[in-house]
Amino acid sequence: MNDPIALHPDAQALLFTDARTANTFTDEPVTDEQLRAIHELAKYPPTAANTQPLRVLYVRHGEPRERLLTHMNDGNRAKTATAPVVAVLAADTDFHHHIPRIFPIRPQMRDTLDGDPASREHMARFNATLQIAYWLLAARAAGLATGPMAGFDAAGIDKEFLADTSWKSLLVVNLGKPGPDAWFPRLPRLDYDDIVRHA
Amino acid sequence: MNDPIALHPDAQALLFTDARTANTFTDEPVTDEQLRAIHELAKYPPTAANTQPLRVLYVRHGEPRERLLTHMNDGNRAKTATAPVVAVLAADTDFHHHIPRIFPIRPQMRDTLDGDPASREHMARFNATLQIAYWLLAARAAGLATGPMAGFDAAGIDKEFLADTSWKSLLVVNLGKPGPDAWFPRLPRLDYDDIVRHA
Repeated sequence: MNDPIALHPDAQALLFTDARTANTFTDEPVTDEQLRAIHELAKYPPTAANTQPLRVLYVRHGEPRERLLTHMNDGNRAKTATAPVVAVLAADTDFHHHIPRIFPIRPQMRDTLDGDPASREHMARFNATLQIAYWLLAARAAGLATGPMAGFDAAGIDKEFLADTSWKSLLVVNLGKPGPDAWFPRLPRLDYDDIVRHA
Repeated sequence: MNDPIALHPDAQALLFTDARTANTFTDEPVTDEQLRAIHELAKYPPTAANTQPLRVLYVRHGEPRERLLTHMNDGNRAKTATAPVVAVLAADTDFHHHIPRIFPIRPQMRDTLDGDPASREHMARFNATLQIAYWLLAARAAGLATGPMAGFDAAGIDKEFLADTSWKSLLVVNLGKPGPDAWFPRLPRLDYDDIVRHA
């Protein structure tokens, strides 16, 4: 365990060191209460100007799930069929409409961004991606296993499920309790000296 | 506190509910041991195909810090001058060179990506942004306060500090122990029903 770490070793294990991406799931449902609890943690860590552009489409079992599967890459389809709930994590490119409420110290930012869709798209994608990571760790905090997948047809999902919104899907995540043989072997991580330099 | 949350309330507070973006810092140094401990947590959560494109340039006090300040927006300069260490968090667009080592189940991905710089740039930015969020929460886990800033001249920093690399700076983060009046009032968060829909 890490010595200079303030976080309790059990919490380190739950969120970071022991947690793994799950590839199978049990039938145990994920409750609305659990989904709300994830939000109650994930909503807090920072975004630029408090913009919070992450949006979430939850897909339980049934007909919409069948339609979702058609947009998943072949290798992701079977596990996406079995997860008790699937989250489509998206960036809202019209996040700026909330600015007077969530960034009241500079409400005029709404109007500036209204005329600058390129900046909005960049801010939405960057900050929603930060929030996806907060959401993944919050889901682990709720005792759930996550299975994030980049292999899907984003344009297809956006057209099929999000056509009436300004949301752009970024990641699809299976969510539930891990089933049998849920984990692949842990892949190697880069070392501190591989990724760090000092100026 | 959240009932359906497995994470201990103290850990919820440290990482999510009580943690705040710091705008002032004490003189207490951040040790190399602390920076390595952050890495030992932040390295674990998932990236697509285990690509791990996040890179970190640490800037302590001295002449390089003075040069860094010239690339910060006016409103960020004073606090960036006082933080014991500043992290420039970047995406390595040549992350694929590590693939045979970190994704040995499909080493040929290196060669596919070598001929596809547009896909590399997208993967690097998306996955490094996820890792930035892991890093921010890992820094909190190490008992440190973070001050992330999007207001800086990325091209200027890349030219000044990263010209010999394939890194692209994404976020600058002050790191240390919070000083006097470190926090602004907490800004409002969006509600579950503002950001969630069900298919």
